[in-house]
Amino acid sequence: MLDIIEKTRDHVPLTQDDIVRLITGIVDNSWPDYQLSAWLMAATLNGLTDEETFQLTGAMAFSNGQPDPLGVVDKHSTGGVGDKTTLVLAPIVASLGIPMAKMSGRGLGHTGGTLDKLESIPGFRTALSPEEIQRQVTEVGVAVVAQTEELAPADRRLYALRDVTGTVNQVSLIASSVMSKKLAAGTPNLVLDVKVGSGAFMADVEQARVLARLMVNIGRYYNRRVTALITSMDQPLGWAVGNAIEVNEARDCLLGKGPDDLREEVIHLSAEMVRLASDQSLDDALMAVKRVLDDGRAWETFQRWIARQGGLVEALSQPLTLAPIKREWRAHSAGTIVSIDTRKIGRASLELGAGRHRLDDSIDPQVGLLCYAKIGTAFTPGDLMGIVYARTEDRAVSALRLLEASIQWGESATPPSLILDRLGH
Amino acid sequence: MLDIIEKTRDHVPLTQDDIVRLITGIVDNSWPDYQLSAWLMAATLNGLTDEETFQLTGAMAFSNGQPDPLGVVDKHSTGGVGDKTTLVLAPIVASLGIPMAKMSGRGLGHTGGTLDKLESIPGFRTALSPEEIQRQVTEVGVAVVAQTEELAPADRRLYALRDVTGTVNQVSLIASSVMSKKLAAGTPNLVLDVKVGSGAFMADVEQARVLARLMVNIGRYYNRRVTALITSMDQPLGWAVGNAIEVNEARDCLLGKGPDDLREEVIHLSAEMVRLASDQSLDDALMAVKRVLDDGRAWETFQRWIARQGGLVEALSQPLTLAPIKREWRAHSAGTIVSIDTRKIGRASLELGAGRHRLDDSIDPQVGLLCYAKIGTAFTPGDLMGIVYARTEDRAVSALRLLEASIQWGESATPPSLILDRLGH
Repeated sequence: MLDIIEKTRDHVPLTQDDIVRLITGIVDNSWPDYQLSAWLMAATLNGLTDEETFQLTGAMAFSNGQPDPLGVVDKHSTGGVGDKTTLVLAPIVASLGIPMAKMSGRGLGHTGGTLDKLESIPGFRTALSPEEIQRQVTEVGVAVVAQTEELAPADRRLYALRDVTGTVNQVSLIASSVMSKKLAAGTPNLVLDVKVGSGAFMADVEQARVLARLMVNIGRYYNRRVTALITSMDQPLGWAVGNAIEVNEARDCLLGKGPDDLREEVIHLSAEMVRLASDQSLDDALMAVKRVLDDGRAWETFQRWIARQGGLVEALSQPLTLAPIKREWRAHSAGTIVSIDTRKIGRASLELGAGRHRLDDSIDPQVGLLCYAKIGTAFTPGDLMGIVYARTEDRAVSALRLLEASIQWGESATPPSLILDRLGH
Repeated sequence: MLDIIEKTRDHVPLTQDDIVRLITGIVDNSWPDYQLSAWLMAATLNGLTDEETFQLTGAMAFSNGQPDPLGVVDKHSTGGVGDKTTLVLAPIVASLGIPMAKMSGRGLGHTGGTLDKLESIPGFRTALSPEEIQRQVTEVGVAVVAQTEELAPADRRLYALRDVTGTVNQVSLIASSVMSKKLAAGTPNLVLDVKVGSGAFMADVEQARVLARLMVNIGRYYNRRVTALITSMDQPLGWAVGNAIEVNEARDCLLGKGPDDLREEVIHLSAEMVRLASDQSLDDALMAVKRVLDDGRAWETFQRWIARQGGLVEALSQPLTLAPIKREWRAHSAGTIVSIDTRKIGRASLELGAGRHRLDDSIDPQVGLLCYAKIGTAFTPGDLMGIVYARTEDRAVSALRLLEASIQWGESATPPSLILDRLGH
């Protein structure tokens, strides 16, 4: 396997055969971790060609053969703070007759995970068998479940190593990791939400475009229709950051309430999904999406979906209960917010207990925060900027300190656009 | 430890404190291999600064404290084919009253090891306690022994990983590996033999100069006097390649016989050692060296040394016995040798059983070869170009084939200079 490491080290492109050997060795554990991590660092510093990235993605995706697709459209977000869009757009899309089966992940570090959020609904189950998923998608039109062990096993091993070897942030490795799971799930249409800004992996739009373009091209190479939206993560999406508290905000959105930015992003992502899956124009898709969101059909689908996965629908007749210690975050002085360190807001939620430092940490579904602070908004002393829901007084204080530290004040600032670019199909 | 990987990945120099943490983590095994190998690849591709290299070398050398020096002068070769200089120069230097205690290594791949060669003398012991070494150096003036487990333990672990992760050939890692062991042994004067050419790690002189300069500077940083000779490895040194067969050639050299190039290189390396250790001029040192080589004193010291380490001196009254199957290598056509792939000649010896593919392979001390082919020498059909000593007929044939393949024929060529450059103290 040394020759594969040496090729990437010396900028010699791997052949398709090299890449198949690489992935086979990862899946059957014949490659030791120390060789894999040396290869990952070489790939991180020297990059991979597009052709290598296509082959790598395909080899990871199809190491267990080609599966039958479960839904007709899927969505993936590169991860942000307060991103509860899946909870709203899945029932919207299903309400329009488009089946959606989504494998989701858990939160790690400053970003949350859709599975954790859904599990804050009492009774909700995320571990479904392929047969259960298939039946549920046919009958309810939507299922959001945990990734099965068999899906893209090479990616799981590579990802675990990347996390501890400083090789997470390489565009080909990110793209192949994301796309291998999506190709493995078999769904023919995919909308990517590539987030950029202070709360995202990608710090600038150009970097995000490179990643988005590469993922679109991987999809094209394997005959998938892929659209990528580049969206701003310069501030949290919506107000709520946590688990139950984000379910409550998603519920508000389905009931026509809650923050505008969440509604806007949900509508755009849903419309792209509908457009891809049904060949409507984007305008028609936007109208259709707004209709099912506003006439209550999406909310009805949401309740049926949650119930079908074991969730107590009665619990959703009102907002879910939050942690008992509620502390307000208020402005000390007058000014306008000119920038937000969104990662710090994610960390505030993490420190409250809503997230994980390590994959085997447990989370507290009832803690979290609301952040009303948005770029361009002016506050005067005493104005309510947010609310923290904590399990202990100490943690509430730490979270408030992080929120405070996340804000840069100034004279004036323009609110950032939510949708920064659109690429692909 | 992730921050150390990320710094080197991002070209941020490690602080002294980072490097101490790195080496401590290697020695106490708290760094997993997969993180070490990611760091090694980052260091290989991005390089390390001189200051980082100095600190790395010192941290590896002194992780077990500062030892008392055993001899006053030491020599290190970066490894070549047919390099038996230590066997001759150690008794020369000792004959001039300069104590020399040398830790040596075993052969791996196409290069041989001094310990293996010495062990082909019946009875010779290389595992001596520090007390035995000290006493022997005081009484005989010379000891050549196996590296103890406690010497620069971080280097041992790093070297094993580099070997399997494509990170062997990085100048700072090579220099710190060599110099950490030399610093750990405590010897105040050091002569380096940096080999360059088709049988060496370093393929060109400029690369070799960079490595030599770095090692000299590491020595200077830690108050050692270091001289580096850059010597040609475009053809084997001398004629003999193997173990017993190289002892025989070293014996010849001590008796005033054998190939000229070996004698010349031994004299130059010895003289540099004498110069460093006794503050004589190089010319005086050269004269003194030739005197003890020619008047038999070096040969007497050699016998006393071998006997003191358990070797049967009677066995040295004649050449050591070689393997029974002796096959001649003869020229097929007329021509002049214009280049030699020296690595192939090392491989011929390796395939005969004189070397190791892996560190735990055993070797056959009696197999080996003589290669009379030298660049610039003309041959006519039927001329003797070399001799192979093999254990089996098959292996003899394979070795002859490799020897044949190592030669490029042409019209004419100038024999390469043996000593290409000299740097340092």
